[in-house]
Amino acid sequence: MSKEMDQLKEILAEVSDLNNASAVLGWDQQTYMPPRGAEARGQALGTLEKLAHEKFTSPEVGKLLDALEKQAASWDPDSDEARLVKVTRRGFNDATKVPSTMVIERAELTTMGNQAWQEARSKSEFSIFEPHLVKLVDWARRFAELFAPYDHVYDPVLDQFEPGMKAADVKAIFDEIRPKQVDLIKRISEAQQVDDSFLHQEFPEKQQWDFGVDVVTAFGYDWSQGRLDKTTHPFQTTLGVGDHRITTRVYPDFFNPYFFGTLHEAGHAMHAQGVSEDLKRTPLYDSPSLAIGESQSRMWENLVGRSKPFWEHYYPKLQKAFPDQLGKVDMETFYKGINKVAPSYIRVEADEATYNLHIMLRMELEMAMMEGEAEVHKLPVYWSELFEKYLGVTPPNDKEGVLQDVHWSFGLMGYFSTYALGNLVSAQLWEVIERDIPDISGKIRNAEFAPLLGWLNQHVHAPGAKFEPQEMVQRITGSKINGDAYLRYLETKFSDIYGL
Amino acid sequence: MSKEMDQLKEILAEVSDLNNASAVLGWDQQTYMPPRGAEARGQALGTLEKLAHEKFTSPEVGKLLDALEKQAASWDPDSDEARLVKVTRRGFNDATKVPSTMVIERAELTTMGNQAWQEARSKSEFSIFEPHLVKLVDWARRFAELFAPYDHVYDPVLDQFEPGMKAADVKAIFDEIRPKQVDLIKRISEAQQVDDSFLHQEFPEKQQWDFGVDVVTAFGYDWSQGRLDKTTHPFQTTLGVGDHRITTRVYPDFFNPYFFGTLHEAGHAMHAQGVSEDLKRTPLYDSPSLAIGESQSRMWENLVGRSKPFWEHYYPKLQKAFPDQLGKVDMETFYKGINKVAPSYIRVEADEATYNLHIMLRMELEMAMMEGEAEVHKLPVYWSELFEKYLGVTPPNDKEGVLQDVHWSFGLMGYFSTYALGNLVSAQLWEVIERDIPDISGKIRNAEFAPLLGWLNQHVHAPGAKFEPQEMVQRITGSKINGDAYLRYLETKFSDIYGL
Repeated sequence: MSKEMDQLKEILAEVSDLNNASAVLGWDQQTYMPPRGAEARGQALGTLEKLAHEKFTSPEVGKLLDALEKQAASWDPDSDEARLVKVTRRGFNDATKVPSTMVIERAELTTMGNQAWQEARSKSEFSIFEPHLVKLVDWARRFAELFAPYDHVYDPVLDQFEPGMKAADVKAIFDEIRPKQVDLIKRISEAQQVDDSFLHQEFPEKQQWDFGVDVVTAFGYDWSQGRLDKTTHPFQTTLGVGDHRITTRVYPDFFNPYFFGTLHEAGHAMHAQGVSEDLKRTPLYDSPSLAIGESQSRMWENLVGRSKPFWEHYYPKLQKAFPDQLGKVDMETFYKGINKVAPSYIRVEADEATYNLHIMLRMELEMAMMEGEAEVHKLPVYWSELFEKYLGVTPPNDKEGVLQDVHWSFGLMGYFSTYALGNLVSAQLWEVIERDIPDISGKIRNAEFAPLLGWLNQHVHAPGAKFEPQEMVQRITGSKINGDAYLRYLETKFSDIYGL
Repeated sequence: MSKEMDQLKEILAEVSDLNNASAVLGWDQQTYMPPRGAEARGQALGTLEKLAHEKFTSPEVGKLLDALEKQAASWDPDSDEARLVKVTRRGFNDATKVPSTMVIERAELTTMGNQAWQEARSKSEFSIFEPHLVKLVDWARRFAELFAPYDHVYDPVLDQFEPGMKAADVKAIFDEIRPKQVDLIKRISEAQQVDDSFLHQEFPEKQQWDFGVDVVTAFGYDWSQGRLDKTTHPFQTTLGVGDHRITTRVYPDFFNPYFFGTLHEAGHAMHAQGVSEDLKRTPLYDSPSLAIGESQSRMWENLVGRSKPFWEHYYPKLQKAFPDQLGKVDMETFYKGINKVAPSYIRVEADEATYNLHIMLRMELEMAMMEGEAEVHKLPVYWSELFEKYLGVTPPNDKEGVLQDVHWSFGLMGYFSTYALGNLVSAQLWEVIERDIPDISGKIRNAEFAPLLGWLNQHVHAPGAKFEPQEMVQRITGSKINGDAYLRYLETKFSDIYGL
């Protein structure tokens, strides 16, 4: 490769090192940092981010990209190098477009906004957060203007998380699936309801922990390049090549959060562990987008971890781990219980059938705010109206309604939709997997996960961030992101469970 | 303060942030990093160190120091600002004096040297390490030349760890105490020997852990700005203001390593926790030198933790924690056992009476190597000769002799002497403490450690690295570093134990 490529890679390697260092500091901050270390940690993180930003946005990078784009005309457009230039250019343009005054302003707005949100949430009083949200929306609109012209003001904020996706694309997908999911939920609500009370019992922590560890080990989570620790909110983080950690939480009186949360984060981590090491210390050593990432976590959590074949293998083991709690609960009852559908107020507790509706509601409100059509102070009213419309229930208060998520307080507009898109992609991939891997259900029933992980490694993980999400899904499945497969999946699964 | 001072502090704050980030990465590397993360971690650490070095040695720092040195003529020379300029200048001159080619060369030599040392040690064969040591000594001699003229070629390597100390100073101190320590050991060897076999029994890990934690908590180690984890080799590290962690190891069949090791590291950590926060994010937020640091760890480990008053309070509690092991061992026997004096081959296992002799032997060999007088291939022979002369025993092989310490493989010449100097300073400080705190023994007997820690905070910890070690000891004790107090301490303590 050319001298310019070597020079670019050298700079990107240092940026990557700084980002990895930030990841270590962030992981430690959430896991083991003593309380009084917080202020110094914030300063160190600020300095690392500043230096990484300075390095990545230096004029030298711009010049190298100019030179490399000319050279790339003669390269294989799918080569690592051609993709590196493309992805680096996108990041460079985005990062240099936002003036540092706005970056600083955003840091201040989100610091104050998050504080206000915490207070508002604890008091269940939206008006405390409202003036901050007004400013954060204003900032996001000014951010979007930097990327004008655009088709829709929501496009630039969405593009941060789903490169290449447009608001119109997502809206079309959501408009297609919404009525069908609403209808499915209605039919389920009219059917014989399932019992999940046995999930709310005392489950000793150690047995929970060991069972989850056994399962993610069987999945193929590689402990030689990972570990599992406890945090308030579970997450996955990459601290460098060969170091992809997950965190979790354990509820002593409820089975679901630890088990399915750990499967979810392990799904993210196996994705990270599967990215080709050839891409290390470049922006390609990453997921193509949040939705592609979420397709992996949701696949292991739901399509595998909430499937019947999975529990045909694991339920006897689970009963052995919790004989007092589950000895008298049969497999069918358990399977139905962990898949119970019921409209609920809180997104993170939502089942597979209702989850996407929580997201659509948020995206509609975000788009309206970005368009300037939604008056922010009326947000709780809009929230309740949409909630009633989609899920048939009305949240009793702001805390369990508009104030439940942290995202907006950090200025994260455009983020939520990636969660729903991830669900859709997981089902699209699964239909291909069912074609490519003979008797995948039988393999799961035998706890043989290597064929599945191997397939994901090859098709989804190894290319890292080389391709934009739509391109990647198109290449693998033959279609762009759409809701058809997910609707088929929901329909089949819940028809069986609820006898529809 | 002046504009230049603000600018200098801003740069130093970023350097400090980068160093803090390195400390987090280093701590994680030793505690929780999964094995396959090692390579990326090395790269990230390399980048952080490079950036910190570049920032600290930038021409801008030189210009700011030039300007500030003029301004400082009118400042209180003891002020934080005047000292900051002085200490920063010293670090800047040292860091800019070494050409980057030599820095890179050193990294390569120590990487290869450490690998060779590991192999040599495991095979107990010095000849494997010898060619590497030859190169490392040559590097150290060239390093010293950069600081010519000097009084002695050993001065520049020593000055890295003990600013302002000269080889001649240390040699004079060691020459003074050596014959007296040799004589003391001889007299002890002729006296009635003490039994310490009860220390080598099974001590369950959890009880060991809890007992040590109780003691360092009583000492005043502040857990809101610290924590304790397990590592192969215990250490203390500062990850930023408010974050001063310690690590330890537990031997299931030997009482001493965990307990005294934890007290030792807690001593370092309480020192770090006591540095004035006014000095944060500057080079003054540190210990004046390794010897001053070691005076604190050794004080809590030995002068407190191996003292009779301490065990008069804690021994009944220890017996309660280990009734089977210690129920029939009386306090006097235990006290003698943990203070047993016996020539041993391994420095880190040495008692208070023999420890310094291990150090002196090393310093003599280092000085001879630096002078070019010692032929490196004869080092095992020199080692045995000196060992026999000082301690009356001869190590059976290289592994338990010249190859036991990692330091030389990292090119650390001049480091060892700080351990012995720390012992001496701990006793010098103690004599002042006995004058300043009425009935300090009685307070320790009541487990009242706040007066001691308060005194250390005020006199030793708060000033951070403002003063050079000799100046600091002179200010506090009225004398420079010397062995008189330590000799008095040893004589009194071991006359009692051995009935001399």
